[in-house]
Amino acid sequence: MLIGGIEAGGTKMVCSVANVRVEAFFADCRREEGEDVAGIKILDRISIPTRQPEETLGEMVAYFKKWEIQALGIGCFGPVDLNKKSATYGHITSTPKPGWAYCDMVGTFEKALDIPVGFDTDVNGAVLGEVTWGAAKGCDSAIYITIGTGVGVGVYCNGGLLHGMVHPEGGHVLLTRHPKDTYKGHCPFHENCIEGLAAGPAVEERWGDKAYNLVDRKEVWEMEAYYIAQAVTDYILCYSPEKIILWGGVMHVQQLFPMAREKVKELLNGYVHHPMVEENINQYIVPPALGEDPGILGAIRLGMLEYERWSEEEA
Amino acid sequence: MLIGGIEAGGTKMVCSVANVRVEAFFADCRREEGEDVAGIKILDRISIPTRQPEETLGEMVAYFKKWEIQALGIGCFGPVDLNKKSATYGHITSTPKPGWAYCDMVGTFEKALDIPVGFDTDVNGAVLGEVTWGAAKGCDSAIYITIGTGVGVGVYCNGGLLHGMVHPEGGHVLLTRHPKDTYKGHCPFHENCIEGLAAGPAVEERWGDKAYNLVDRKEVWEMEAYYIAQAVTDYILCYSPEKIILWGGVMHVQQLFPMAREKVKELLNGYVHHPMVEENINQYIVPPALGEDPGILGAIRLGMLEYERWSEEEA
Repeated sequence: MLIGGIEAGGTKMVCSVANVRVEAFFADCRREEGEDVAGIKILDRISIPTRQPEETLGEMVAYFKKWEIQALGIGCFGPVDLNKKSATYGHITSTPKPGWAYCDMVGTFEKALDIPVGFDTDVNGAVLGEVTWGAAKGCDSAIYITIGTGVGVGVYCNGGLLHGMVHPEGGHVLLTRHPKDTYKGHCPFHENCIEGLAAGPAVEERWGDKAYNLVDRKEVWEMEAYYIAQAVTDYILCYSPEKIILWGGVMHVQQLFPMAREKVKELLNGYVHHPMVEENINQYIVPPALGEDPGILGAIRLGMLEYERWSEEEA
Repeated sequence: MLIGGIEAGGTKMVCSVANVRVEAFFADCRREEGEDVAGIKILDRISIPTRQPEETLGEMVAYFKKWEIQALGIGCFGPVDLNKKSATYGHITSTPKPGWAYCDMVGTFEKALDIPVGFDTDVNGAVLGEVTWGAAKGCDSAIYITIGTGVGVGVYCNGGLLHGMVHPEGGHVLLTRHPKDTYKGHCPFHENCIEGLAAGPAVEERWGDKAYNLVDRKEVWEMEAYYIAQAVTDYILCYSPEKIILWGGVMHVQQLFPMAREKVKELLNGYVHHPMVEENINQYIVPPALGEDPGILGAIRLGMLEYERWSEEEA
């Protein structure tokens, strides 16, 4: 069975089609030769630059029409409306991105393709990918933090993705400023949130160069680890996750992982008694096991879950 | 049917026995005359001072033995072990409270009374009470924050109480210090957490008097609201709860609610678009609807849920 997945971002739309073995719906199945993960083989993917909604979505619909997909999953940049009882369910909501506010993502693909469409935030998609096949496989609770152009946090707990009233916005938790930081911050809403102080654009604007040109400047990464660790400490205290997956462009700077882990232990200061924190923090705060693919595999999983729900309703 | 409930605290153990109508197990039932909440009438309660475990628990067991209870629920001070697969499930774990570290709460009552025993943190019990019968009735997600001797946060999401790896410890999220605050903080683990800066003992130590003697000092409550609002803002961003219940001794100071709500709006600064935040924050951040009883009613509900699980396993 073919299922489509979209990782819908503000700069690009990654669209893919996967072959899904029926066993993958039910339970643990083994990965067969040639599959990307157990039960799943990604057959094709394209990256479409995000321009205005009409032409971008038109191109995406045309792509999927070439395949006989049975369902589609979308992990989408936000904020989005995840409330199925809402009139704007499946829409991107109040984004400042020109043209995209109140764009009906689910409706567009449901109408054009006449198939079930699963929908969630991009980071919830990514955590779902890692919980299903990756570093958090088998966990009942896990978070996925991406630190790139922005900061996002996907949350899986009590056996499902966390929505709540809107959806979590952990990328904007408030931090204490580093005493040496005089940079004004990059978030138009919050003076001192993790996105405004530690996302890629903040690093670049504060230090006057791209992150990858700053790798040898110790003070850059000490300040960065100081901010990331504060946020991760708050996530540990709020969610008590079984696994923390940390990724995004900024986290490709190798020295950040050990620095952030060390600083998290320092901030928790022995308060959370658990071997994962106290002895195995290298296995607790980790990069994704799915490489650069947690988002797209998560989107495919969203499509699978929506297909299951739809089949149950039909039955 | 009689069900017992315990609100197990560091200073007192509130034990109670309720009559539970069978309808209360299944679905929405109406409150009948004489009932405290729908389906529940609290028949008796006592408060036992918390001394050493042996004598305290002995007295509690003796109390419940006088009644023919079918199940018991315990909302317990922590940290506690909530993992049913763990060897220390149902124990209080690393508490500094003399004598109580690794005290087997569930085992004690299971052995003495030979009935199913439900167990969770005190604040998870309280949020469950409010979700079942109180201010968060019908919500799929809600949090209960108590600001008293300490700070605790109970979390209900995705249709269940949040545990995760250990259990949430939102009472220790890290805050930015008020520029005028020179007080060292009251938490032995964290220099700047909500419990250390805003719980009752911190207020008393910082200002040199009990909270209720400080009600007219504006600067006290401005600083207090500054801290509470930072934490609540982080909880909104992390959990996206449908309802926030705020209580505990400190919150009995009337002016704190409007001050904290105003400051939360200021800190979110329009980022979370939802009428509950933007227009109805008075209905969003609220005291409990169950008065001083969310904890004890939540404990009874924990007993009911454990009885249901046990009945299903027996069937």
